[in-house]
Amino acid sequence: MTSVDDARRAYIAMGCLVEPGSRVLGEAVIRHGPIEALRRLLSGTLDSALQGAVAARLPAGDPFSVADAALARAERLGARIVTPLDEEWPARLADLTRISRGRERHERDTYPPLCLWLRGPWPLAEALDRSVAVVGARAATGYGEHVATELAYGLADRGWTVVSGGAYGIDSAAHRGALSAGGVTVAVLACGVDRAYPASNASLFERIAETGLLISEWPPGAEPHRHRFLIRNRVIAAATVGTVVVEAAARSGAIQTLRRASELGRIPMAVPGPVTSAMSVGTHEALRSEEVRLVTGWPHVLEEVGRIGTDLAPVPRGPERLRDRLDPVTAQVLDAVGRRLAGPEQIAASAGVSLPTAMRALSVLTAAGFVVIRDGGYALPRQRPSPAGRGR
Amino acid sequence: MTSVDDARRAYIAMGCLVEPGSRVLGEAVIRHGPIEALRRLLSGTLDSALQGAVAARLPAGDPFSVADAALARAERLGARIVTPLDEEWPARLADLTRISRGRERHERDTYPPLCLWLRGPWPLAEALDRSVAVVGARAATGYGEHVATELAYGLADRGWTVVSGGAYGIDSAAHRGALSAGGVTVAVLACGVDRAYPASNASLFERIAETGLLISEWPPGAEPHRHRFLIRNRVIAAATVGTVVVEAAARSGAIQTLRRASELGRIPMAVPGPVTSAMSVGTHEALRSEEVRLVTGWPHVLEEVGRIGTDLAPVPRGPERLRDRLDPVTAQVLDAVGRRLAGPEQIAASAGVSLPTAMRALSVLTAAGFVVIRDGGYALPRQRPSPAGRGR
Repeated sequence: MTSVDDARRAYIAMGCLVEPGSRVLGEAVIRHGPIEALRRLLSGTLDSALQGAVAARLPAGDPFSVADAALARAERLGARIVTPLDEEWPARLADLTRISRGRERHERDTYPPLCLWLRGPWPLAEALDRSVAVVGARAATGYGEHVATELAYGLADRGWTVVSGGAYGIDSAAHRGALSAGGVTVAVLACGVDRAYPASNASLFERIAETGLLISEWPPGAEPHRHRFLIRNRVIAAATVGTVVVEAAARSGAIQTLRRASELGRIPMAVPGPVTSAMSVGTHEALRSEEVRLVTGWPHVLEEVGRIGTDLAPVPRGPERLRDRLDPVTAQVLDAVGRRLAGPEQIAASAGVSLPTAMRALSVLTAAGFVVIRDGGYALPRQRPSPAGRGR
Repeated sequence: MTSVDDARRAYIAMGCLVEPGSRVLGEAVIRHGPIEALRRLLSGTLDSALQGAVAARLPAGDPFSVADAALARAERLGARIVTPLDEEWPARLADLTRISRGRERHERDTYPPLCLWLRGPWPLAEALDRSVAVVGARAATGYGEHVATELAYGLADRGWTVVSGGAYGIDSAAHRGALSAGGVTVAVLACGVDRAYPASNASLFERIAETGLLISEWPPGAEPHRHRFLIRNRVIAAATVGTVVVEAAARSGAIQTLRRASELGRIPMAVPGPVTSAMSVGTHEALRSEEVRLVTGWPHVLEEVGRIGTDLAPVPRGPERLRDRLDPVTAQVLDAVGRRLAGPEQIAASAGVSLPTAMRALSVLTAAGFVVIRDGGYALPRQRPSPAGRGR
């Protein structure tokens, strides 16, 4: 086991002992740091209800032993635990504090996670750097699943990570589409990363754990309680550059994720469908609000998230720095280059720029090694960077 | 034949001799009045190209004889001619002058019509007072035709006139939906009102001429030239409170009508569809622009046009005056009352107001005779006003 300092162990202990999102605990961590927050939590100085809840999970003993047990358990399961003190913690999650402070007292608290359990080869922050959430109805139609698959394939094929919730229907279609493209997909679960829920998605989750990431705020073994899906949704909204809802009924969790994304300053997007379909009632209502952007496929999504993705990205290191120094138009053209060879006309059309502009950008990109020429077409380099040094 | 003064005859003569929309002629009419504009047109003072075009239609003789012949022909066909000097001229058409002045010289001129040929029992201005255009693709899908029919039925059932272009596909579905509801529908044609184009719509046009209106800027016998559809579209956009596009391919005349409606300050609306359908590519692109409102059915359309319809209406006379004096919320509740009995809960839900608000409004409306109570439900009065004295 690696050496773990007390602050990390305090985060992990709190993550095990308290249901995520707590305002009282979140504010205590911000004001006093994790170690003092944990001390106040246990002594009942913070909140007697919280103290009671903790007591139900920790009848007696050292809270740090809870953390140590969690770390040992993670290791046994091939998982790991990430806290805000770790390099791979996604900086975007901190934005949850701002919107949580603005919420009414009677609403559910939505403070950031205190720690995350992970399974999969990617450093979390890198995997989420250029990511889009694709979510929607469980009871999706064939139309919705088709659209979600195509959307996720296109995004993953262009180097974007597809984040979803691992549920039936749209979520599964999104994960599968990204996997088909050989891309990265992240499933944010409402139960432990060792649980397959729904059970029939077990093999999908195994594939995701091999090439992408399974993540959860709840420790291994945690059940997918109903309220956990709603609290989980804030992580999907906050961790990504934008959220696309493909199908959603009138009162749907996916619409709540979309609203959260909008509150967080992320880009809220929705795919329309037949007005005769109950599974598009929620998306159409969302599209009638002013902020939500109508998208019909991955090119529209890239148009929305393309440049902003770079702005929101955490401080870039290594190969990322080069990309961020591209001017916006060149970056836009790079977004339109995929793993498959394409001619300059096709790239110009996809990027939405003129052919001369695309030609100029492609020569810069080729010279800098972002793009290769083969058989008169352009593509991203075949050699994929290793997970640890992921370039895009 | 009724006594027709020279100014009316001048309008009619110009309507017969010049293709609609001319900027030069439109400005001359505004500056010098129709009689002097006609004199300048014939003498070549205005524009030599226009003079040449007129000469091709009037080799010699008195231009007023053209007007008299047109009036006699209209009478033989059971049609009539309406000019800006007549009481039933729709005041909204004048707005075309403003947007035409803003257009580039290389664009097609879009000045208001100089006269209109009509077949049907309704006074034109009254028929258009509360009207919505429902337009779209000729090569519509079953989905699109279904949606257009439902939309037009719902609008007509609530006393709104449905305006369209008489074409195959969405246009025909819209006319038919309005007719099924026993409502008023207006077909704005790009050929003479005696021509059935497309031919298979002949019986539809006869039904419209019996209970609604067929109207055209072109004299009887005129052919539906290709460019006439585009110039005709400005009348559909200008004459109505708002335009709904149901299905449209990427470069579609219906989208041009929508853009025109937006330029004119009318309400541009579009119905989404499957993103996999080529017939919804144009509507989705339109919905991605900021002004176009997404609507999924007639309740959304009424929400958009309901109150503004009243504002745009020409100076109200008779029973209309009463309605305009209703406060906005009461008018909103009235919009939700249909020909079929409905309970107050249903009306409140449809109007988007609380039940107590709906109850208050319904008691005002019942007392004023706008609404009747039968069997515990509310409905519009059964007795329909005669065409000449149409109340709503």
